Amino acid sequence: MACGEFDVIARYFDRYKHSRRDVQLGIGDDCALLTVAEKQVLAISTDTLVEGTHFLPTIDPADLAYKALAVNVSDLAAMGADPAWLSLALTLPKVDEPWLAAFSDSLFEQLNYYGMQLIGGDTTRGSLSLTLTVHGLVPAGRALTRSGARVGDWIYVSGTLGDSAAGLALLQDRLTVTDDDDRRALLARHLRPQPRVLHGQALRDLANAAIDISDGLISDLGHILKASACGARIDLDAIPYSDAMQRQVTPEQALKWALTGGEDYELCFTVPEINRGALDVALHHAGAPFTCIGQLAPQSEGIQYLRGNRPVELGWQGFDHFMDQ
Amino acid sequence: MACGEFDVIARYFDRYKHSRRDVQLGIGDDCALLTVAEKQVLAISTDTLVEGTHFLPTIDPADLAYKALAVNVSDLAAMGADPAWLSLALTLPKVDEPWLAAFSDSLFEQLNYYGMQLIGGDTTRGSLSLTLTVHGLVPAGRALTRSGARVGDWIYVSGTLGDSAAGLALLQDRLTVTDDDDRRALLARHLRPQPRVLHGQALRDLANAAIDISDGLISDLGHILKASACGARIDLDAIPYSDAMQRQVTPEQALKWALTGGEDYELCFTVPEINRGALDVALHHAGAPFTCIGQLAPQSEGIQYLRGNRPVELGWQGFDHFMDQ
Repeated sequence: MACGEFDVIARYFDRYKHSRRDVQLGIGDDCALLTVAEKQVLAISTDTLVEGTHFLPTIDPADLAYKALAVNVSDLAAMGADPAWLSLALTLPKVDEPWLAAFSDSLFEQLNYYGMQLIGGDTTRGSLSLTLTVHGLVPAGRALTRSGARVGDWIYVSGTLGDSAAGLALLQDRLTVTDDDDRRALLARHLRPQPRVLHGQALRDLANAAIDISDGLISDLGHILKASACGARIDLDAIPYSDAMQRQVTPEQALKWALTGGEDYELCFTVPEINRGALDVALHHAGAPFTCIGQLAPQSEGIQYLRGNRPVELGWQGFDHFMDQ
Repeated sequence: MACGEFDVIARYFDRYKHSRRDVQLGIGDDCALLTVAEKQVLAISTDTLVEGTHFLPTIDPADLAYKALAVNVSDLAAMGADPAWLSLALTLPKVDEPWLAAFSDSLFEQLNYYGMQLIGGDTTRGSLSLTLTVHGLVPAGRALTRSGARVGDWIYVSGTLGDSAAGLALLQDRLTVTDDDDRRALLARHLRPQPRVLHGQALRDLANAAIDISDGLISDLGHILKASACGARIDLDAIPYSDAMQRQVTPEQALKWALTGGEDYELCFTVPEINRGALDVALHHAGAPFTCIGQLAPQSEGIQYLRGNRPVELGWQGFDHFMDQ
């Protein structure tokens, strides 16, 4: 192979020397050096994506770069943080220059969109996988967590649910959609999820708790309930679906994907009654709908699912990479 | 498999809830939340270790955890930073509980040694690999970089060189050592390298540039020379070897491993003449020897190797994971 490790890094990932003022030293030394302004708290999250486990071997490198960053930025959104810096560890079976060009073009486009800077990482040889560590900033004392929810809070979700699972089903030929627009819309929701950064920031002073929906609503709301010692009543009739989903999928399948499908990267958040009016104003310009889907209840009640105020039973769970599926 | 992803994380990596005061929120939310004191700069470094590329499949999990952290902390040492937080992304082919127990015991022992806290990460299924992102703190304006070296600076290294390559050769049956103590000493230098954190901190106000020796002295000194636009004269007779190396390896092989073997995780640093006296005092208690091996020269001279003040020719280079070897 003619191209050494340092050449690869230099050529594809060291293209933009500087953009953020808080980056004293970026790529090219033993460490990056960063400054954090007074009264700002640092939020850090790490995600690994492995070929075959998190994405299909056929994925377009531009989609992969997009999704890897979006998934990670979604964790910052769930804390109400401003995205700032990225460390990228990229393991590749070989140096494939067209692949690297497409991947890095897409990555830098997205970094630019979020005002983020790539500050370092590592490039190694092995089966294709990526580990991203994102760093964001949030004013001290104003970060959203999973543990602040209170009984009586209203439960909201941003956007629509289940579309990403439908998009994955399309890619895996488990779902057939003949309408081109609907097919494209569902695929886009799987391949190009939109982290709700503006929602998260708008929620800093309004929501008691927030999480991003990566493993399915039930599983992720469950983390809030556990951390906050609450139960919940979910109005199944209120779950928001996209137009494409409503047109192309049976109501039962749509509900299952919405509750357990995962990878929607919408936010689930809880808001006290007193903040509901302010919420409508604050989220009005955030660029995606938001829907009240239920209310927090005492922990002893667990999760109750309702239709027209009558309890119904569901047997599904969120997915888990290490569980047999 | 009976053990889900979240159980694994909870059981082995969420054992110590809190230790550092600057960790507002550790493992268990969408992000960790950290505070950075005024006048401190954040140093961040990422390293990936892949089975088969960076470690042998037979490696003991305790050694792997030790080395993964040591390698990464070595980058903080090279900046003069205090180690603070770790994000760990662990990709495993299966949930092997004895392996996880040994790995995490060793990891927490080392984290405790450095006063570091595990703040988050990810656990995924795939071929065995680890990505660590370490965060350290360094007083503003006092970090060591690769680019501060000046012509006339004296070139130093900590400890002894080449032992790690000898240890690897032992593991791969390319070297035979019958003396048990020497064998153990060389193996330990490969399996349990000691990042020079105290050296790095002591050098903050004394060295003009520093780097850790991960790819071999020639390669890593080369990064300083390139970043600082200097050349160098290296006195091959001054290269420091361990007693075990001197007893068990031919001088020619010892020199080759010292210059190009890699993975010693010693520091290479450059010091102006005026600071040499202070250096002796500052490093006296740092726990490892340090040796002057040459002097920086004008860039036009490149790297010159000397024996008894007479130039000699060498044909070797540092290694590169993506180059044919």
